[in-house]
Amino acid sequence: MAKAPVLTPRADDFPRWYQDLINKAELADNGPVRGTMVIRPYGYGLWERMQAEMDTRIKETGTQNAYFPLLIPQSYFVKEADHVEGFAPELAVVTHGGGKELEEPAVVRPTSEMIINDYFAKWVQSYRDLPLLINQWANVVRWELRPRLFLRTTEFLWQEGHTAHATYEDARDFAAHIHRKVYEDFMVNVLAMDVVPGRKTVKERFAGAINTLTLEGMMGDGKALQLATSHELGQNFAKAFNTQYLSKEGKQELVWQTSWGSTTRMIGALVMTHGDDNGLRVPPRLAQIQVVVLAIKGDDAVLAKVRELGDRLKAAGIRVQVDDRTDVPFGRRAVDWELKGVPVRIEIGPRDLENGTAMVARRIPGGKEPVGIESLVELLPGILEDDQALLLKQSRERRESRTAEVSTVEEAVEAAASGWARIPWAALGASGEARLAEQSVTVRCLVAEDGSVPDDEDAPGNVAIVARAY
Amino acid sequence: MAKAPVLTPRADDFPRWYQDLINKAELADNGPVRGTMVIRPYGYGLWERMQAEMDTRIKETGTQNAYFPLLIPQSYFVKEADHVEGFAPELAVVTHGGGKELEEPAVVRPTSEMIINDYFAKWVQSYRDLPLLINQWANVVRWELRPRLFLRTTEFLWQEGHTAHATYEDARDFAAHIHRKVYEDFMVNVLAMDVVPGRKTVKERFAGAINTLTLEGMMGDGKALQLATSHELGQNFAKAFNTQYLSKEGKQELVWQTSWGSTTRMIGALVMTHGDDNGLRVPPRLAQIQVVVLAIKGDDAVLAKVRELGDRLKAAGIRVQVDDRTDVPFGRRAVDWELKGVPVRIEIGPRDLENGTAMVARRIPGGKEPVGIESLVELLPGILEDDQALLLKQSRERRESRTAEVSTVEEAVEAAASGWARIPWAALGASGEARLAEQSVTVRCLVAEDGSVPDDEDAPGNVAIVARAY
Repeated sequence: MAKAPVLTPRADDFPRWYQDLINKAELADNGPVRGTMVIRPYGYGLWERMQAEMDTRIKETGTQNAYFPLLIPQSYFVKEADHVEGFAPELAVVTHGGGKELEEPAVVRPTSEMIINDYFAKWVQSYRDLPLLINQWANVVRWELRPRLFLRTTEFLWQEGHTAHATYEDARDFAAHIHRKVYEDFMVNVLAMDVVPGRKTVKERFAGAINTLTLEGMMGDGKALQLATSHELGQNFAKAFNTQYLSKEGKQELVWQTSWGSTTRMIGALVMTHGDDNGLRVPPRLAQIQVVVLAIKGDDAVLAKVRELGDRLKAAGIRVQVDDRTDVPFGRRAVDWELKGVPVRIEIGPRDLENGTAMVARRIPGGKEPVGIESLVELLPGILEDDQALLLKQSRERRESRTAEVSTVEEAVEAAASGWARIPWAALGASGEARLAEQSVTVRCLVAEDGSVPDDEDAPGNVAIVARAY
Repeated sequence: MAKAPVLTPRADDFPRWYQDLINKAELADNGPVRGTMVIRPYGYGLWERMQAEMDTRIKETGTQNAYFPLLIPQSYFVKEADHVEGFAPELAVVTHGGGKELEEPAVVRPTSEMIINDYFAKWVQSYRDLPLLINQWANVVRWELRPRLFLRTTEFLWQEGHTAHATYEDARDFAAHIHRKVYEDFMVNVLAMDVVPGRKTVKERFAGAINTLTLEGMMGDGKALQLATSHELGQNFAKAFNTQYLSKEGKQELVWQTSWGSTTRMIGALVMTHGDDNGLRVPPRLAQIQVVVLAIKGDDAVLAKVRELGDRLKAAGIRVQVDDRTDVPFGRRAVDWELKGVPVRIEIGPRDLENGTAMVARRIPGGKEPVGIESLVELLPGILEDDQALLLKQSRERRESRTAEVSTVEEAVEAAASGWARIPWAALGASGEARLAEQSVTVRCLVAEDGSVPDDEDAPGNVAIVARAY
């Protein structure tokens, strides 16, 4: 008799599988205000690990964390015209405070360029104050009409970096550094996602930017998800806020700026990249629980062994949890850890103790085999690294097998039904991009022939990556 | 000729000294919406260290972090009557979202009992789900008419813990554990503040609580500051949200709850407890920069030495920063590090190199003396621990010397002009408390005769700590 599936199978209904997984793995719930979300402890634990890994990389660039207010006077939202136009439809507005109507309504930040630049203009005086490198971890609100947990929520959590530089080149190089050495490095080496770094077309640029760099990932259904962006802002905001510095040569000059962000959307990406019909699969380097040690029965010797093994694994630097809740049926706990995607389960019962072995279940390749208990401490680090590498390999193979080389708009639309298309930008251009949009297909990014990120939208050999996207 | 003071002296004008210090040490700026604040990188660094130390202690209790939405439907704010009455005057309300007036306005959370309990009611089913121990790090908004940076701001950052338990005793013990083993331990052993743990009177309780536990600190001007609170909520919210569990005996029972919070106000407390006329003094265990190594001149040998010494100190586990900005005058940099309160400055110039010594300036006791460079790595950990202990001792001595034992309301008011008063609660009572309030003096907390926290407001021997407060 076939077991009833725990989740709606991906092949049957991918969006429903996604909702099922988020619900059953206890990652998040819908909030009461439309589009908001409650991030449950297991989901938030993923975010905390993402924050820790990202924060280290961000600080290594010399960037410091700070915190700017949630509420921004509505009048600020007229300063940079493109930026304002981009965000106006999404704003949440506070009109009453302390029981009274406010003289000036306040916008709940949708992003912080408008308020941070106000302070940059005060803090930057001389070339000695540059580069000014600031990041904040914060919540933002963008009114969302078609919400989906983690992917598009009215409130989300993110980091937003904001920097000011003396020259165009410094700003450009910094935006590129964040793009590749912070974001891409984190996504490839921690999230095990085979992301594609590229530049956005003019149409897809951030409101107020002169260039937007992006990382695009292919999800399990072949659609694309934009994972993080890094923007060159040129002098657009510097002009709007009159942010000037006294150069070494004694001249007043406008600064050059960048901004860059990554969000809780990465949790949704994790689910849709590595999840399977049994649940999530968390890359070992990210996992807050890398190994769970389960007592099959509430036998004293078994409980003593799982606790002792837990202590030894912890001492060896492995992030481990002991599951000794033997009042909950073993099968239910095993399914739950599988749903949550913990990379390795070590299961120990009375018979295992007699044999000196434990059943080791590997979530990522799948499968289960007995292993000598005494050899676990030595074996596990290698298993975790192998499984980390396997996830990245599977992600790469999916992208490669589901990406088609095409040369016409029609072929691109067809390919986008099940994956990505690569098409020469010279053959597509802005007019082809507009025709794709009629079919809900977008240019995710432009890449150079050799896979690098083009310095120029119209460089010969540029290839457009085309897909349907979340 | 006397040097012009860097800050307004404390004795001249304490509030202005506080503002001066926050400004010149670059801790924070006022935000554009009244009462909001920008936490600058050096100030935010203090908060990050507080978060790290607190988060570890919170997780050791078995509490898990999660995240609940910023926006709460206005209709939720009718569920627990006392709670609602307490917060109604401070609410910020979003009435427009996505360019339209909302059908139901949303409140920007002033605290999260109202939304978290909605989910607790769903998540708690059986005794097996208890205790449910949740914490979140978040921003909250309470409209503030008399704002002061860090102490009272319209938006502030905090952690808020929310827990549900099977029995009254479990909830009571957990609230007490957070009070003493998390908050007090952190404040005494990291912030070096000699705080007094006690319980609030009925008048001073949190809106909706059956008991509020508090930690009160004496500031440099003798006033009191409430530093963190831990509340027993009884079954008030359980009744409002109908949060029930199936007991082992198969009966439906209401849960017992706690909530507890600590905020960016602790940064203001740090300033007012340890600051002096030259600036802040940061306790070494908190400091994100424990030691700064300054190159006096841009001499090659000097620069090489400060960098090498910085590397060695870092390798020894000391949080160190190298200041080799020799294009900024040395005196200005020294004053700046003094303002910022970095515990130890190591100053090295060409003459020091010849002697094999460095000038070591200790911010906490004050004073400066030459020390052999080679012995620094060995000496510094002891110096930092001594200075940590000295700050706590100074904080205790101030409280002891400025606290008077009194027996009448009049004496209590007189003592509160420059410090604290201790008065038997039996002699004061609710009527005496009301008379104190007419003089802007409040009962900060009740303590038992032996210094412990009373289980009962009216236990014989209870002493009221009475003061003016921030």
